[in-house]
Amino acid sequence: MKWKKEWVSYALGKELPELVLKNANVVDVFSKRVRTADVAIQEGRIVGVGEYRGKREENLAGRYVCPGLIDAHVHIESSMTSPALFSRQILPHGTTTVIADPHEIVNVAGERGMEYMLRASENVPVNVYWMLPSCVPINSLEHNGAVYDAAQMERLCRHPRVLGLGEVMDCPGVLVGKPELLEKIELMRHGVIDGHAPSVRGNELQAYCLAGVQTDHECATYEEALERVQAGFLVQIREGSAARNLEAIVSGALKDGLPFDCFAFCTDDLHLDDVKRQGHIDHNIRKSIRLGLDPVTAICCATLQPARFYGLRDLGAVAAGFRADLVVLDDLEEFRIVQVYKDGVPASEKITGIPEPMAEPELTHTVHVPAISAARLALPAQQNFPVVTLVPGEILTRLEYLELPGQKGVFRPQGDLLKAAVIQRHSGSGQLGVGVVKGFGLKNGAIASTIAHDSHNLIVIGDNDADILCAVDALRACQGGYAVCSGGKVRQVLPLPVAGLFTERADLDVAAAQHEMGKLCRSMGVPENLDPFQNLSFLSLCVIPEIRLTDSGVFSVAENRFLTGENG
Amino acid sequence: MKWKKEWVSYALGKELPELVLKNANVVDVFSKRVRTADVAIQEGRIVGVGEYRGKREENLAGRYVCPGLIDAHVHIESSMTSPALFSRQILPHGTTTVIADPHEIVNVAGERGMEYMLRASENVPVNVYWMLPSCVPINSLEHNGAVYDAAQMERLCRHPRVLGLGEVMDCPGVLVGKPELLEKIELMRHGVIDGHAPSVRGNELQAYCLAGVQTDHECATYEEALERVQAGFLVQIREGSAARNLEAIVSGALKDGLPFDCFAFCTDDLHLDDVKRQGHIDHNIRKSIRLGLDPVTAICCATLQPARFYGLRDLGAVAAGFRADLVVLDDLEEFRIVQVYKDGVPASEKITGIPEPMAEPELTHTVHVPAISAARLALPAQQNFPVVTLVPGEILTRLEYLELPGQKGVFRPQGDLLKAAVIQRHSGSGQLGVGVVKGFGLKNGAIASTIAHDSHNLIVIGDNDADILCAVDALRACQGGYAVCSGGKVRQVLPLPVAGLFTERADLDVAAAQHEMGKLCRSMGVPENLDPFQNLSFLSLCVIPEIRLTDSGVFSVAENRFLTGENG
Repeated sequence: MKWKKEWVSYALGKELPELVLKNANVVDVFSKRVRTADVAIQEGRIVGVGEYRGKREENLAGRYVCPGLIDAHVHIESSMTSPALFSRQILPHGTTTVIADPHEIVNVAGERGMEYMLRASENVPVNVYWMLPSCVPINSLEHNGAVYDAAQMERLCRHPRVLGLGEVMDCPGVLVGKPELLEKIELMRHGVIDGHAPSVRGNELQAYCLAGVQTDHECATYEEALERVQAGFLVQIREGSAARNLEAIVSGALKDGLPFDCFAFCTDDLHLDDVKRQGHIDHNIRKSIRLGLDPVTAICCATLQPARFYGLRDLGAVAAGFRADLVVLDDLEEFRIVQVYKDGVPASEKITGIPEPMAEPELTHTVHVPAISAARLALPAQQNFPVVTLVPGEILTRLEYLELPGQKGVFRPQGDLLKAAVIQRHSGSGQLGVGVVKGFGLKNGAIASTIAHDSHNLIVIGDNDADILCAVDALRACQGGYAVCSGGKVRQVLPLPVAGLFTERADLDVAAAQHEMGKLCRSMGVPENLDPFQNLSFLSLCVIPEIRLTDSGVFSVAENRFLTGENG
Repeated sequence: MKWKKEWVSYALGKELPELVLKNANVVDVFSKRVRTADVAIQEGRIVGVGEYRGKREENLAGRYVCPGLIDAHVHIESSMTSPALFSRQILPHGTTTVIADPHEIVNVAGERGMEYMLRASENVPVNVYWMLPSCVPINSLEHNGAVYDAAQMERLCRHPRVLGLGEVMDCPGVLVGKPELLEKIELMRHGVIDGHAPSVRGNELQAYCLAGVQTDHECATYEEALERVQAGFLVQIREGSAARNLEAIVSGALKDGLPFDCFAFCTDDLHLDDVKRQGHIDHNIRKSIRLGLDPVTAICCATLQPARFYGLRDLGAVAAGFRADLVVLDDLEEFRIVQVYKDGVPASEKITGIPEPMAEPELTHTVHVPAISAARLALPAQQNFPVVTLVPGEILTRLEYLELPGQKGVFRPQGDLLKAAVIQRHSGSGQLGVGVVKGFGLKNGAIASTIAHDSHNLIVIGDNDADILCAVDALRACQGGYAVCSGGKVRQVLPLPVAGLFTERADLDVAAAQHEMGKLCRSMGVPENLDPFQNLSFLSLCVIPEIRLTDSGVFSVAENRFLTGENG
């Protein structure tokens, strides 16, 4: 905390501070109760809570003031916007601080991506802290854009906005003592080591914890959450666009009478249309309160608790010395926000102007895909082909061995079977894997995306080669994003040129575009219970059961081996 | 935390750890409940809590295991023993960690004293962390042995066992922005800044907090404690030999329904006879439970809460990765300790052998008092002399202007009026102040001490000059401690040669000696409601109302001026 000697005069009431919020009902996260007081603010800092007069006074007339909210784990890339644009969307919802893991961009652009994120989040309307991504590449099964190793981390590990190591997804790697992973944990041990350990229980969880992992945002059940609390974890309760764990955990804890001290809130991956529709961390708070959680306890999960855990000593409370990141509410039970202050300035004044693009050319030219001939997409018609069968409403898939129908011995998509391909887009090698997906429903067209977890190769799905190639060409042309093609023509494109993951353009309404493209896909046959681009983007993630498609071919997660391709 | 890759095998149960405490009722400070589990220990570290087998197994048969206790604020010097000897006394009481402020020794010996404390606490049976004393000298009114400034602090501020800045007693200095004090706060801001602010309230407390102070152990009432909790302080609830605040704060908080999250326990100043009689931090826990506090909450105040606040990341919990500092209890309500483990080893094995003396000659030769002639102790018989009147049961004093009776115009102690003197003992200048004390009760003798807060000059009181000089000579001869003289002869001496404050001799039973010397003093007339050496040691502390005696003369605290002497 930058501290000025002069502030003491304001605290003492000897000089009038710039702004005093008079007659506030202060949500005190320390005593866990609400009390009436004035909040004195000078140069973005709370200089006193008590009885104060100010140069400017705002009579809150009993409205509630709580600390600015903290998202304890988020991938900003999931918003498909830059840190500056993302900040503008969440600040009005009361979020003044995020702890972000730039896992996606670093998978594409390595250290350059990490440095861009630091730079691009420096002067944005919310506090952006970073965890250095621990698993880039996530594995050796797919080809991503970069390796991010301990030597590169070392250059940033003491950066004032770097708080530790990003989610250690490679739990098996920890348990077998993978040297390069342990090296990263060792390097970042002065900070927080974030975890990611869905379903890990018992002695394996003890071992994971012993290795130094301290948080987890992947708990889907109360029982998983309780076991992590007992191990000393901060459990980050997630409400994302795809994964929603809050109801299970909060209801479970309430029923069991567990204290909420070891919980924080997070979104992990949240699309902007969800932010617009239901909110950000304020949504986690409202949902918790509706489930029966006391509002002050819910606020603590979004403020002091993550702040203390991550060592953010001047965040998360309405008290002298803390940053004047404040949320004004006219109702505590409904958590109805009427004003947000960031560093003592109303949110509306913080989000004026248009943020400048900051990505260098190397970062906006990452879709290196050569011309692909239709012949390279050919699959022989055959018996017993390992087909990726979608599970409605899930990102899980099922492996089914099916007959591929065809003409002249070549597979032709028909009925419920579509063709999909993953094309390596980082080195320009043009390596690709072709597979078959059941249940996507698309007719007379193709859709493609350069967001494809976690290596973010170009993934495309369609029922004919012409549209598939058209979609690939469209994404090469705009250097990444989403594309929908039909009848050999581009129907719609959402250009996301920064690492092929997000945009810096303030004039582009990503949420609206996403919504429209979804509608377009549905008009082309994609069923309601399937989010076309979301499902597509997880089709290549080799850690989720049961079967995935990569640029090396079809992969069985259970068997941990390729079923097709050179290695199949 | 030193971490070894191999530990994971123990956590996984693939290899048998050295020791498993089977069937324990683990006090889980995270979930704040008790659960049955085995605790696996390897190389002093908890490697897993769950179901484990071990090379050696100890069946606890349902006994409770809680984390080792933490004293969040203590002056080890008050025990009149070295860190090694002190550790041996407190470890059997379950205290495995202390956060100590070496304010006393640094007032005598400056940086040399600080370095001794670090060295002498390195390999002792408990974890000793240090706060660098912030107010040495405490003021310019008395003459102490050393200045400890920011430049000296800087050399140690990143030491792994230095956690921050010791109690900032000079609250007025903070409020007026005293540059040398702010410099120290700034230097130590990466750690914790300990406070000391009895009775400071309202906007002054806000200003003190804004300056960076984060803890206080001086709360005497619940209202003071609540106000500090609301400001974000860790309130260290004190049970010392002289100051006992636990009942007021714990009862108040229970009555008011305040959560206990922002509390820790401390002793501040505790004599070894009190440790023997009632315990150390275990006493704070027992007393809290008797007042109605839930045992698990009480244990949290003595473990996880101070550990987290001071950034001691592997202390304060029974969980994988934490140090195996454990207390085994056969009753939670009575907090009855049956075993203590330090780093996985039973306390009894940790406190074998005799600790080596570690003080260098300069540290054991600090009583620099030249020969004093009786003439220098003479006070004229006079009207209206400012007499120090003791208040029974308090360390407060009252100022009374009384007539000094005498012979040949020279004051001769008689009735209830004794002569006292403070002799500067640091530079050898022989500067001294003489005063008169009412209510001490001593007849036919004198007692002297080199423990005299906070400058630790030699203080002596008696009813005749011969015994006064005899006591001074006795302390010069043994280089500090306590002395009782009568009839011109030394009756008893407790030698405390390290900085004139404590001993390194394991064979010296300080508690017994203290007890005996107290009895001797009472046989010489000191009343029951007065602790002779304790009261004597505070007679020179110029921050406690109403009147004090220093080597510069009699000082009025209220008027902030000397009433006698060159400056009077």
